[in-house]
Amino acid sequence: MKIESVDLFYFSMPQVLDIGDGSQDMLLVRMTDSAGTVAWGECEAAPLVSIASWICPMSHSACKPVAASVIGQRLDSVADIERIGTLVRDNSMDLLQADHTLSGIDMAMWDLLGKRLNEPVYKLLGYPKAYAKTPYASLLFADEAQQTMREARDLRKRGFRAVKFGWGPFGQTTVKADVDQLAAAREGLGPDGILLVDAGTVWSGDFAAAEMRVSALKQFGATWLEEPFVSGELDAYQRLSALAGPVKLAGGEGCHNVHQARHMIDYARIGYVQIDAGRIGGITPSKQVADYARSKGVTYVNHTFTSHLALSASIQPFAGIESDTICEYPVQPKALAYEATTEHLIPDADGHLRLSDAPGLGVTPNPQALRKYLVETEITVQGKVLYRTPKL
Amino acid sequence: MKIESVDLFYFSMPQVLDIGDGSQDMLLVRMTDSAGTVAWGECEAAPLVSIASWICPMSHSACKPVAASVIGQRLDSVADIERIGTLVRDNSMDLLQADHTLSGIDMAMWDLLGKRLNEPVYKLLGYPKAYAKTPYASLLFADEAQQTMREARDLRKRGFRAVKFGWGPFGQTTVKADVDQLAAAREGLGPDGILLVDAGTVWSGDFAAAEMRVSALKQFGATWLEEPFVSGELDAYQRLSALAGPVKLAGGEGCHNVHQARHMIDYARIGYVQIDAGRIGGITPSKQVADYARSKGVTYVNHTFTSHLALSASIQPFAGIESDTICEYPVQPKALAYEATTEHLIPDADGHLRLSDAPGLGVTPNPQALRKYLVETEITVQGKVLYRTPKL
Repeated sequence: MKIESVDLFYFSMPQVLDIGDGSQDMLLVRMTDSAGTVAWGECEAAPLVSIASWICPMSHSACKPVAASVIGQRLDSVADIERIGTLVRDNSMDLLQADHTLSGIDMAMWDLLGKRLNEPVYKLLGYPKAYAKTPYASLLFADEAQQTMREARDLRKRGFRAVKFGWGPFGQTTVKADVDQLAAAREGLGPDGILLVDAGTVWSGDFAAAEMRVSALKQFGATWLEEPFVSGELDAYQRLSALAGPVKLAGGEGCHNVHQARHMIDYARIGYVQIDAGRIGGITPSKQVADYARSKGVTYVNHTFTSHLALSASIQPFAGIESDTICEYPVQPKALAYEATTEHLIPDADGHLRLSDAPGLGVTPNPQALRKYLVETEITVQGKVLYRTPKL
Repeated sequence: MKIESVDLFYFSMPQVLDIGDGSQDMLLVRMTDSAGTVAWGECEAAPLVSIASWICPMSHSACKPVAASVIGQRLDSVADIERIGTLVRDNSMDLLQADHTLSGIDMAMWDLLGKRLNEPVYKLLGYPKAYAKTPYASLLFADEAQQTMREARDLRKRGFRAVKFGWGPFGQTTVKADVDQLAAAREGLGPDGILLVDAGTVWSGDFAAAEMRVSALKQFGATWLEEPFVSGELDAYQRLSALAGPVKLAGGEGCHNVHQARHMIDYARIGYVQIDAGRIGGITPSKQVADYARSKGVTYVNHTFTSHLALSASIQPFAGIESDTICEYPVQPKALAYEATTEHLIPDADGHLRLSDAPGLGVTPNPQALRKYLVETEITVQGKVLYRTPKL
């Protein structure tokens, strides 16, 4: 079979707020093969820019639009998916945005192959079984430590055993204020709750500030400290990692290729590698990172802040690794992100999340619900329309 | 003063060929301050995608269009340029293309400040003097070794002491064929010619293939071996570096932030760091890399394949480092890239290249010559025109 057509759809909430919520807009990829099978994928963030990278005129032989390496390609096997990914990376080497665009394309290829072979994606990835994951709820540290405590307690009552607190006032003022926040979070979660802490790169360029929080993180039993620095600061990560055990460092959400994720494992010495399949180039490179992480004793975790289509795609790469139990789960997505799909991945009564066994990604977009969020877009170059929002 | 307006212009040759020539299209940035001073910068490759990243609707607080962090900003000092760059990186953290777009903006800010303070950019960067550089000519290995020899000889006659051969058949067939090519290049250049070799990432994932060429590179006195692998393969670089001395490894042209360049120095152990100011985020991060390289005994070299505006911008960051003598020089640019500017940087009779002492970048676009290459572009979202080619 061949990839016959690919359509990109840009959706958005009527109003996008200036807050750290990645569920406010969305770029969906619809792929159709020559037999008429339809499949879907999703790219993380900046829909207009990824659309431009899909259809832009060629700059030179290593800076082609992503579409040039996808449309008309044969797609019959996992090897074809890998081949097409390599083609995109080679032909669009100097097009920085290409990795994000490829992400949704790659997901759609896996969805397509799964639907054609009547298998869920995790089986095509070589996993005999998809293990249940423990979803963690992610929220901001409250302005007052007492409020952080109440929110942690509420989430436990709602069935979340693992909670990630981050950003907000954390790291912004005194060590004492941060110690109070960590104490409050632990109190609210109870002794057996899994406490995850996200520093949101607040100590970038300031190792000493990070170092001063280590003993409190140990005292209140944080499982991981996420992004103390920006990803590139491999040396600082490595130094902090040596000090922080048994609290492990977590990072990697910004990685847009496998190499960067390996650097986080090999040089930054993180204990948890957080991969967004919507950024790193899709399911294929995510699975490569999961394999590499396992070989190095590092735990894989998805990074997901968007729809349940992206959630399914981001869990498939480590679905079959029994020991990697934690997964990120968007707890309060905007209406767009939730309504986007017909099926949803809902934690069961014991708080566990399970992938669907339906063919492909097992989660399909709901065009009827999505239509009201469609962002009509048109790109014209030298009088020729290169992109116009397709019919949904 | 404030940054009053920024206009982006997309230019292209009438026909863009599927060859490795980055001078076939161009994105120029025109910046005007509140006093009416006009300055220019240039972004490397994929003009349409960088335009989209400049004006796209916000996705969330860390994924804003680049324009949101630039227009209306105060710009009175070098510190303001650094502040605005940091703002772009923070506000557009999840917008992958942003680093390439920032590159042209950053160049224009330096040009603007230089024009306002009546100083060339290298002086604003803290260099009392700009040293002459030895430009190298860059061309493909010919299909036949004898032809490579003739081309090397011709370039020496044209005054180029340093020549870089790369790509073409090199690394594609037998070790013997590569040895013949290297012997031919050395013969053509003569014993005192500077021979640079660019493997064009041909041995990506195949360390043994690279290893087999090391003794010939030593035998024929190559000064550097460029990009034996893709940039992310830090371990492979490091292993080859240990084997290859005195031939040093060169790489880094794809780096889109300072961290990546530091990884190439610290972990890949390259001896020459090649930075494209049109990709890494402009002159500001390039200068940071030049400073870091110097502290580590690594030589800085510009990567430039476009106009003489980009050439000036890419040489400024290491203009004042006397010991970093080699610079890349586009020898056969397309008409667009050459006609783009009124001034040109031409090697003098002794083969040396000198920066202009004119204020700012000292090279200005030539609107009259450029008009015929202008690519009329329009981007409309929800019926609103977000971008339309401005008047040149």
